[in-house]
Amino acid sequence: MPVSVPPTRSSSGRPRARGLGLPLPGTPGPLNAITDVPGVSVGLTTLSDDAAPAIRTGVTAVLPRPAGDLLSPVWAGGFTMNGNGEMTGTHWIGEAGWFAGPVTLTNTLSLGVAHHATARWMVERFRPRLEENNLWLLPVAAETFDGWLNDIYGQHVGEDHVLAAIDRAAPGPVAEGSVGGGAGMICYEFKGGTGTASRRVTVAGQEATLGVLVQANHGLRPWLTVCGRAVGEALPGDRVWTRERGSIIVLIATDAPLLPIQLQRLARRAAIGIGRGGTPSGNNSGDIFLAFSTANNPGPLPEPRRLTLEAIGNGRLDPLFLAVVEAVEEAVLNAMLAAEPCTGYKGRFVPALDGARLAELVCG
Amino acid sequence: MPVSVPPTRSSSGRPRARGLGLPLPGTPGPLNAITDVPGVSVGLTTLSDDAAPAIRTGVTAVLPRPAGDLLSPVWAGGFTMNGNGEMTGTHWIGEAGWFAGPVTLTNTLSLGVAHHATARWMVERFRPRLEENNLWLLPVAAETFDGWLNDIYGQHVGEDHVLAAIDRAAPGPVAEGSVGGGAGMICYEFKGGTGTASRRVTVAGQEATLGVLVQANHGLRPWLTVCGRAVGEALPGDRVWTRERGSIIVLIATDAPLLPIQLQRLARRAAIGIGRGGTPSGNNSGDIFLAFSTANNPGPLPEPRRLTLEAIGNGRLDPLFLAVVEAVEEAVLNAMLAAEPCTGYKGRFVPALDGARLAELVCG
Amino acid sequence: MPVSVPPTRSSSGRPRARGLGLPLPGTPGPLNAITDVPGVSVGLTTLSDDAAPAIRTGVTAVLPRPAGDLLSPVWAGGFTMNGNGEMTGTHWIGEAGWFAGPVTLTNTLSLGVAHHATARWMVERFRPRLEENNLWLLPVAAETFDGWLNDIYGQHVGEDHVLAAIDRAAPGPVAEGSVGGGAGMICYEFKGGTGTASRRVTVAGQEATLGVLVQANHGLRPWLTVCGRAVGEALPGDRVWTRERGSIIVLIATDAPLLPIQLQRLARRAAIGIGRGGTPSGNNSGDIFLAFSTANNPGPLPEPRRLTLEAIGNGRLDPLFLAVVEAVEEAVLNAMLAAEPCTGYKGRFVPALDGARLAELVCG
Amino acid sequence: MPVSVPPTRSSSGRPRARGLGLPLPGTPGPLNAITDVPGVSVGLTTLSDDAAPAIRTGVTAVLPRPAGDLLSPVWAGGFTMNGNGEMTGTHWIGEAGWFAGPVTLTNTLSLGVAHHATARWMVERFRPRLEENNLWLLPVAAETFDGWLNDIYGQHVGEDHVLAAIDRAAPGPVAEGSVGGGAGMICYEFKGGTGTASRRVTVAGQEATLGVLVQANHGLRPWLTVCGRAVGEALPGDRVWTRERGSIIVLIATDAPLLPIQLQRLARRAAIGIGRGGTPSGNNSGDIFLAFSTANNPGPLPEPRRLTLEAIGNGRLDPLFLAVVEAVEEAVLNAMLAAEPCTGYKGRFVPALDGARLAELVCG
Repeated sequence: MPVSVPPTRSSSGRPRARGLGLPLPGTPGPLNAITDVPGVSVGLTTLSDDAAPAIRTGVTAVLPRPAGDLLSPVWAGGFTMNGNGEMTGTHWIGEAGWFAGPVTLTNTLSLGVAHHATARWMVERFRPRLEENNLWLLPVAAETFDGWLNDIYGQHVGEDHVLAAIDRAAPGPVAEGSVGGGAGMICYEFKGGTGTASRRVTVAGQEATLGVLVQANHGLRPWLTVCGRAVGEALPGDRVWTRERGSIIVLIATDAPLLPIQLQRLARRAAIGIGRGGTPSGNNSGDIFLAFSTANNPGPLPEPRRLTLEAIGNGRLDPLFLAVVEAVEEAVLNAMLAAEPCTGYKGRFVPALDGARLAELVCG
Repeated sequence: MPVSVPPTRSSSGRPRARGLGLPLPGTPGPLNAITDVPGVSVGLTTLSDDAAPAIRTGVTAVLPRPAGDLLSPVWAGGFTMNGNGEMTGTHWIGEAGWFAGPVTLTNTLSLGVAHHATARWMVERFRPRLEENNLWLLPVAAETFDGWLNDIYGQHVGEDHVLAAIDRAAPGPVAEGSVGGGAGMICYEFKGGTGTASRRVTVAGQEATLGVLVQANHGLRPWLTVCGRAVGEALPGDRVWTRERGSIIVLIATDAPLLPIQLQRLARRAAIGIGRGGTPSGNNSGDIFLAFSTANNPGPLPEPRRLTLEAIGNGRLDPLFLAVVEAVEEAVLNAMLAAEPCTGYKGRFVPALDGARLAELVCG
Repeated sequence: MPVSVPPTRSSSGRPRARGLGLPLPGTPGPLNAITDVPGVSVGLTTLSDDAAPAIRTGVTAVLPRPAGDLLSPVWAGGFTMNGNGEMTGTHWIGEAGWFAGPVTLTNTLSLGVAHHATARWMVERFRPRLEENNLWLLPVAAETFDGWLNDIYGQHVGEDHVLAAIDRAAPGPVAEGSVGGGAGMICYEFKGGTGTASRRVTVAGQEATLGVLVQANHGLRPWLTVCGRAVGEALPGDRVWTRERGSIIVLIATDAPLLPIQLQRLARRAAIGIGRGGTPSGNNSGDIFLAFSTANNPGPLPEPRRLTLEAIGNGRLDPLFLAVVEAVEEAVLNAMLAAEPCTGYKGRFVPALDGARLAELVCG
Repeated sequence: MPVSVPPTRSSSGRPRARGLGLPLPGTPGPLNAITDVPGVSVGLTTLSDDAAPAIRTGVTAVLPRPAGDLLSPVWAGGFTMNGNGEMTGTHWIGEAGWFAGPVTLTNTLSLGVAHHATARWMVERFRPRLEENNLWLLPVAAETFDGWLNDIYGQHVGEDHVLAAIDRAAPGPVAEGSVGGGAGMICYEFKGGTGTASRRVTVAGQEATLGVLVQANHGLRPWLTVCGRAVGEALPGDRVWTRERGSIIVLIATDAPLLPIQLQRLARRAAIGIGRGGTPSGNNSGDIFLAFSTANNPGPLPEPRRLTLEAIGNGRLDPLFLAVVEAVEEAVLNAMLAAEPCTGYKGRFVPALDGARLAELVCG
């Protein structure tokens, strides 16, 4: 089998973390993206307007199954490392271990619109079956705060933006950096945003893929650590602030068959993954993680009377745990590396992470 | 001090549970309502339209502090007895033990609008302070499903409806039954809705008030138990369905000084409160509870550097625990008793609980 | 098939709740005991010594599988309604959703001995396999406080008492009242102790059995409610104290195939079950619940590489939820009804619940 | 004020992490130990016997307050990152936010003895007050598995060993490495054991001390990362196994005034701290953390009727979060660096971490 080389440059043309030669562990999938997990797709709507008050925001939609099969739940489990943020749908995910429908990521004050529009999208697509079975919807929408670069208080995301992100969802390479919900993000006081990565692992004798997507908006510069090097102080770029105003949402997808309680375990490992970048999960950061498995598809709602689930034994999960840690670390780097410098709301400027300099510091 | 007699009739003119002489335990506050807790107010927007597809929905807003002081957090703790529902804001409540701003209750597919509009309301009122401190908002919005009587898939609640509910919030008697978010509710297969009750208790040598407000939409007829009597089968009124499609949201307010971890304890007791009505907390019911204390006001956000909190010792909490159980049981009854029979979506009919017959069954 | 009539009298000769004709809902299994679940057995060691300081304590062992198969986990989930108590093993049950080995119940200050001896029992029986696989053991031991009637500070339970309880475990009728870990219990200020009950239910088209065993040591007299009647004040028997000093441990067994996350749901329903007896889950009460399923036996540890689990769909769980509520309510009654009046430590006297008078109050 | 230099060598004479010049962040307290937190003391009992079957085990006792004041609770909060282990007392810590008495750490199959003896120690010291108030005790005992080097199935720890560890507790330098409960530990396939570290931080304008103590028994060699360098494969020393059989218990003490809910937040940060060493928190590892604050001493039990608590505002907690992460990372290193090579049960050999070589790899 020929070894595929995942894309070394993001859609912005800037090198991804592996393109810079950073010594990252593990074996990524063909795209080094959450879309390496079969059936998972990503769609983006980016809002950018230089006119005052500047708009730098957007919506990211992650579809855990093909659009036509989104009434079929995926098994899921979440973890809130630091709850200074929002992810809806988690009461039911904690109760039943699944959710159905798209996941949307946007800014803090547009989460309501994302929730509303996701519900509408599901209704438009599945109304007969919803109505016949008196089904409700508990959409999963999450957020991070982009109020430094974006006129967040203006609530500029509209329903159509959300619907478009969902409709645009596609497999294949995922745009990174200042796109979708990541448009106005700031990460370790560099421009942050959307990032993704994946890992191929062998568990219990079988191949599995695990992919993550982050909306990275967390961290203070002095904390920044890359491949173990505390590089924050040495990198060029003025600091942005002295108090964190961020958050990081992590979505973890896998095709490995896992029970809900095991997916909760995967979600918890994202805490270690973000920690590798230097953050102690600061007070102001909503560090909320969600893991889901596309295996064991129970078919469209309502739930069947009886289920049969395959699962990997707990004793074999360590490769998946490591995959979460590694992929989260890398996805955060990809988010920063893909992003261009940005001037936004009130003329505030946020520098980009200098990839070349970073590579020197880490590898030189 | 003259003994005040709480209102024996709801705003609909129908007798409340105590007005019927049901042998309910405990001592209610002057209004027997959540508004007995000083500073707490309630506002309602009810949407009702008989034209097909019929609309039977609305918004209930509970303001934990006077409108002008809503940037000052209240200490809080929640509990999800059965997570088949949604309440936003709970990640942060679980993390920091407080929330700021109005709580809104509406239907499942309008939760996004409630969230969005609540954020907008807060921005409109507090923008300078929010902006100066780069503050975000994590509104508390919760929902129950009214799709049997209401064209829920039409998402008829708009931002203005939510803003109006918040703006109308007032102390004093609280309308019950088919009002606000409770407009389309069904409880034990009778018409349900909004209900409230309160208790005065002595804890650690001091008087305290505890009030609850429920959006009651749960239960199957055969389960219904009132004051210990299994009355469901004996009451008049055709059954509505054979599978629960409901939920119950419980808000608990108190002026007793309590730590966040203690408010979580109060919230858990609502499980026993709803259980007194007969429900085992069925799978389809989103039974989500939130308790908050208006004491120990830390002042408007951002959080102060240091806090001093008064709290009741854990060994003295039992009267408050009992108050939660009793007030929840009574608020559910008040919700049902205040509601009129209702015909809604697709001409479906839901009978009202016959209070007179109920009183005979229980007391006769 | 002839209808079996469950035992109407406990081993003490006193009538059980159904023997008194109390109007309890649901259909019990043949024994109306946790041992109705195939493979589950119960063993008891009761310590009683009238000499000062009086000893009134013991150990209850519940074996979720036949003794020879105790290295095979049972799937499990727990819930802590009020954590003023102890149940070991719950970190792993929350993580992996299973435990292996006997469950022991004893007094608060003998929990360590129960844990130690359970580990020893497992080592003695399974050492080669443990050693070969470097397995550890995380025994499940739980406790309630019997220091009113028992010289608890003397720590009179020894390893042999625990080993004997495990070795005596047998299927068949379960002794109730002042036996095993329930020897020194007090419940609603009557003599409490060990109680059990079961339910047969049809879920997803198949028959299932659910049994519970409680160590009932909770509640204040005025709270006592039986079949919905607040009978506490009307029953004969001096009060014991004014502040609760109890706890209730609930074990729930079923042969229905359930995922760990679903067993957590069952465990939560025990809160409503104890609430039916009148308790608001008081501050001083360790109300800790554990549910396990004997289905989906994965075979002896270590865990297999891959698992296949059958499960009932969430939408069909309500009969099991109701069964938990009903069986817990009944098991608490059985514990009280089986117990004789008791004089213990420092000559303190605790009256027994007067079954005949109770029946009059409830049914008369 | 003269700058104190914390001890650069452990009691074994081997250099600690800072003594090797490893570039560790932050400012430690005078001892760089948990005992830098005023009032906290540590006592050890180490069992070592070369005769077959070899014994390599022990008990570590951490007293959160001076022995005479151990009936006065400390405020506390815990977190279970991976529950493949045991820590008792956590139900109540999660409920009320405090515990009273010593914390003991030992091997997995001796946890029962540690629990039992701790209860006995408390009874012997405080019986009159316990008895007068009918108080129970819910000791905090935790464990890790030492069955590779120790005849764990022999359960060689006795009550006297536990009592001695508690009685020996003293302020001042803390012995590290193969001592106390850490005697038989293995960490990243090097000899592990007991380790400690501390940080001085300024929070909300005031000085505070935070100290941690770990029983480090986790990790696979290839995972080992020190100061960001993946050194595991490059260090000398044969590997021990291919499957983790460990755990890490982390105790975090501080004199900063914090609410229970805030101490839960501190405990969660230990996940990031252990992650810095390379572990993804493997399936077989019981990674259980407990944080406590000695501030806001409420006086000896029973709890007072009313409490007043000082607390740091959440917005100021980041220095404490960082302190947890840093101190946990360093304490694990200290545990490994202090330990000598060890031959134990069945002649199994575990190499020591080569500090000099490590320093070369990290700093060279």
